[in-house]
Amino acid sequence: MTQSETRTYRLGEIAAQLGGELVGNADVEIRRLATLESAGAGDLSFLSGAKYRRLLQTTRASAVILSRLERDATNLPRILCDDPYAYFARAAQLLNPQTRPAPGVHPQSVIESGAVVPASVTIGSSCRVGSGARLGERVVLHSGCTVGEEAEIGDDSCLYPGVTVYPCCVIGKRAVIHAGVVIGADGFGMALDAGRWIKIPQRGRVVIGDDVEVGANTTIDRGTLDDTVIEDGVKLDNQIQIGHNVRIGAHTAMAGCVGVAGSARIGRYCTVGGGAIILGHLEIADHVNISAATLVTKSITREGTYTGAFPFAPNREWAKTAANLRNLDGLVRRVRELEQRLATLEKRKR
Amino acid sequence: MTQSETRTYRLGEIAAQLGGELVGNADVEIRRLATLESAGAGDLSFLSGAKYRRLLQTTRASAVILSRLERDATNLPRILCDDPYAYFARAAQLLNPQTRPAPGVHPQSVIESGAVVPASVTIGSSCRVGSGARLGERVVLHSGCTVGEEAEIGDDSCLYPGVTVYPCCVIGKRAVIHAGVVIGADGFGMALDAGRWIKIPQRGRVVIGDDVEVGANTTIDRGTLDDTVIEDGVKLDNQIQIGHNVRIGAHTAMAGCVGVAGSARIGRYCTVGGGAIILGHLEIADHVNISAATLVTKSITREGTYTGAFPFAPNREWAKTAANLRNLDGLVRRVRELEQRLATLEKRKR
Amino acid sequence: MTQSETRTYRLGEIAAQLGGELVGNADVEIRRLATLESAGAGDLSFLSGAKYRRLLQTTRASAVILSRLERDATNLPRILCDDPYAYFARAAQLLNPQTRPAPGVHPQSVIESGAVVPASVTIGSSCRVGSGARLGERVVLHSGCTVGEEAEIGDDSCLYPGVTVYPCCVIGKRAVIHAGVVIGADGFGMALDAGRWIKIPQRGRVVIGDDVEVGANTTIDRGTLDDTVIEDGVKLDNQIQIGHNVRIGAHTAMAGCVGVAGSARIGRYCTVGGGAIILGHLEIADHVNISAATLVTKSITREGTYTGAFPFAPNREWAKTAANLRNLDGLVRRVRELEQRLATLEKRKR
Repeated sequence: MTQSETRTYRLGEIAAQLGGELVGNADVEIRRLATLESAGAGDLSFLSGAKYRRLLQTTRASAVILSRLERDATNLPRILCDDPYAYFARAAQLLNPQTRPAPGVHPQSVIESGAVVPASVTIGSSCRVGSGARLGERVVLHSGCTVGEEAEIGDDSCLYPGVTVYPCCVIGKRAVIHAGVVIGADGFGMALDAGRWIKIPQRGRVVIGDDVEVGANTTIDRGTLDDTVIEDGVKLDNQIQIGHNVRIGAHTAMAGCVGVAGSARIGRYCTVGGGAIILGHLEIADHVNISAATLVTKSITREGTYTGAFPFAPNREWAKTAANLRNLDGLVRRVRELEQRLATLEKRKR
Repeated sequence: MTQSETRTYRLGEIAAQLGGELVGNADVEIRRLATLESAGAGDLSFLSGAKYRRLLQTTRASAVILSRLERDATNLPRILCDDPYAYFARAAQLLNPQTRPAPGVHPQSVIESGAVVPASVTIGSSCRVGSGARLGERVVLHSGCTVGEEAEIGDDSCLYPGVTVYPCCVIGKRAVIHAGVVIGADGFGMALDAGRWIKIPQRGRVVIGDDVEVGANTTIDRGTLDDTVIEDGVKLDNQIQIGHNVRIGAHTAMAGCVGVAGSARIGRYCTVGGGAIILGHLEIADHVNISAATLVTKSITREGTYTGAFPFAPNREWAKTAANLRNLDGLVRRVRELEQRLATLEKRKR
Repeated sequence: MTQSETRTYRLGEIAAQLGGELVGNADVEIRRLATLESAGAGDLSFLSGAKYRRLLQTTRASAVILSRLERDATNLPRILCDDPYAYFARAAQLLNPQTRPAPGVHPQSVIESGAVVPASVTIGSSCRVGSGARLGERVVLHSGCTVGEEAEIGDDSCLYPGVTVYPCCVIGKRAVIHAGVVIGADGFGMALDAGRWIKIPQRGRVVIGDDVEVGANTTIDRGTLDDTVIEDGVKLDNQIQIGHNVRIGAHTAMAGCVGVAGSARIGRYCTVGGGAIILGHLEIADHVNISAATLVTKSITREGTYTGAFPFAPNREWAKTAANLRNLDGLVRRVRELEQRLATLEKRKR
């Protein structure tokens, strides 16, 4: 995870592999990517958003990635492309190829009988793989992971330290599951019966598609009877809670601290801002963007952006607004009364 | 946690054990529970809430659990009862009896001297039980759990992988503690002294009653001087934060992502919706329901439902409302001025 | 973490060490600190805030810490000082000196070659210290911690069970990192390219200063290109999420469940209330206080207190306010119309 091991590229090599129009010296040597502000010799930088354009004048980067519209914004060697941010992402992948640890199972881990563990798999110390669990080719379990009985993890997936996968859950290929994630804990299901909560056994699974990333300490509960489903390409940030029987459509992305209550169905290509809460049993269409800290209380059937956070203010102004808000009904009544009195006056006028 | 191991029941056996009025073929074989939508032959389903009644026409379930009022809503074999959801919960427990792993301590776990570990206990790999800790009969620690010095865990409690119980904390009987839970970390207590925060040692405990369930990655802090107390039958979902010296009354249930600040006292039989925040040093009466994403800023002395989330809207409408809200004080002034001008006009009229 | 091991002090000894004016019997024996309500013989208590003054009449404490203004509020032996809460904090540290476990590396832990582990270090069971990692003097890793390759942890820092530090991250001296914390997981960085999210490799580090405390299950993401930085003396409560490339200024404190999005820069001596969300790329000045559950949507350039939570109410009142709020634009229009009609009437009057 250090940048030191990466090899050097010439700018022309990068353009040859990733496309774009190269302007200037193709032989400039690129060792790493950097922001315009912190870049130095050997660094490739990028401009994404006009806000930072002035930094082009002062950057010490050896080359930059620019939108085609910014062709003349600098004299530095540059690659012009349609989407500098996506280009930067691909260049970063090129310059930082993923390394994986050597295969092998650490002797201080426990592989229960009947677990399927290919020779290409890496298992760190203090892990446990339950009986009947099946790991795909080149799966990596960092230290302290637990994979429950009959669980499945697809080829090339990586679990960082301390991940728990409960029994019978399924994770697809190329998953990146960060430290402390819990997949398949019981959903929050119970019924009140004579003054006591009776637990409803949670017997569904969590089923996660391919190319999913799950951020640190995020939790995804197993379904009650049917499964909780996370489709291909979904990206979940840290500290997210996904309730039982939720379905998240392909390529939807959620920022940190989001909570999704049970049985909500979220469409494809949605985005959910940090700290938003989505209530249970709702349906959200494809291509819906939920703003940060928004509480979604009913289904959303049309694509678009939806927001629901109270605008913050200096405390004194906020207190005034809050007081006025509490009296809003009174204000509505006063306006109605004014309308009536005015109508009376106007009549007399005639 | 797979359903495959469960035995088959005849519908009449279920009714005989759990009560209710059986209508139709008592000999129908039931292998598992399923939703009306996904049920097939051998499945027992249930109708809870009129919203799903139409599914009774198309379900392929072998039998259903219904409210007594719905007696004639289907021709399927059925059990009529007062509360179909609670009945479903009990039927689910009957059909999915909890299995527990074989007793024994995994050799790759550490039991410090002076810990009390009965022969009926199961301890998975990579656990640590500190000196002076006491585990009750049939306690299960899944892999990677840490139980601190002098901590106590009651009979039949189960800790899923990676749970940490700090020293001296107490957990009652039949607890279900999900993966990644942290019980007894230091409360957030400090004083600002000459520009630096001084830590206040947190010397109280967490004391948890019987029949408590705690969801994945939830955290409950130890008290400063006195204890943090979670009473019998409390149910906490995932990703909840309970501050130091909080007391949660018996049978209260909290949904995911709730935060409760220090020294709040919450009554019995309360419910708290997902993402709600309860400030410190408040008191909340019994039978109070807090809606999702509500910030509770003062004590609540009467039972009832309390809400405080801004209504979400398409972003454009939201922006308009937010702007009006910022100018609400101006609107109040304009209404007052209108009232004065109108009063002047009305006077002249006389 | 039990109080039983602490030695006894005479009140005069405490005043001699910590200052303040002693009034009454200096020979009173003090064994521990307690709240006014729960104190008994041998307990030193304190009054902080007039709200609890009446408890001075009934407390069974052997002595109390008071503000100089409260000199005559009780006849109990007492220490008068400027800031009773800070004094209490220092007295609590005096009476509860931190104990540390005996040095040594548990045989069921893994220290990779090239890791630097001084003889004064304590490493519990089921830990892993990666190659090239450097632990300072007297560092304590409780059971189940993972310290990644090339990571550094400063002298006298303590990691509670199950902490994960990703490779190359740096933690300063005297850190207290609670159970389940994840430091250095990948930031949430990706670009949408032809309908798929491309991951942006996260190559920066997390760099944490001295005297930082991090609460249970909190997560701090590594930077994309540059580092995420937590300055000296920062205090983070539980369940907080800090995004990539965030900078938090020295001595800032955040309560539980806060989320800070990527590249936000937060000043020194700020406080952030529980559940607040701070959006990305914002700047917040020094000495800013953000209230609980506030969404911060733009930069804050002046010190002060900022708030943004909707005032909660009984559900019925809330529903009325919410409905009025949805129609606020209509109300504004009605007031404008009233103003015009009234102006017309007033003109005719003349």
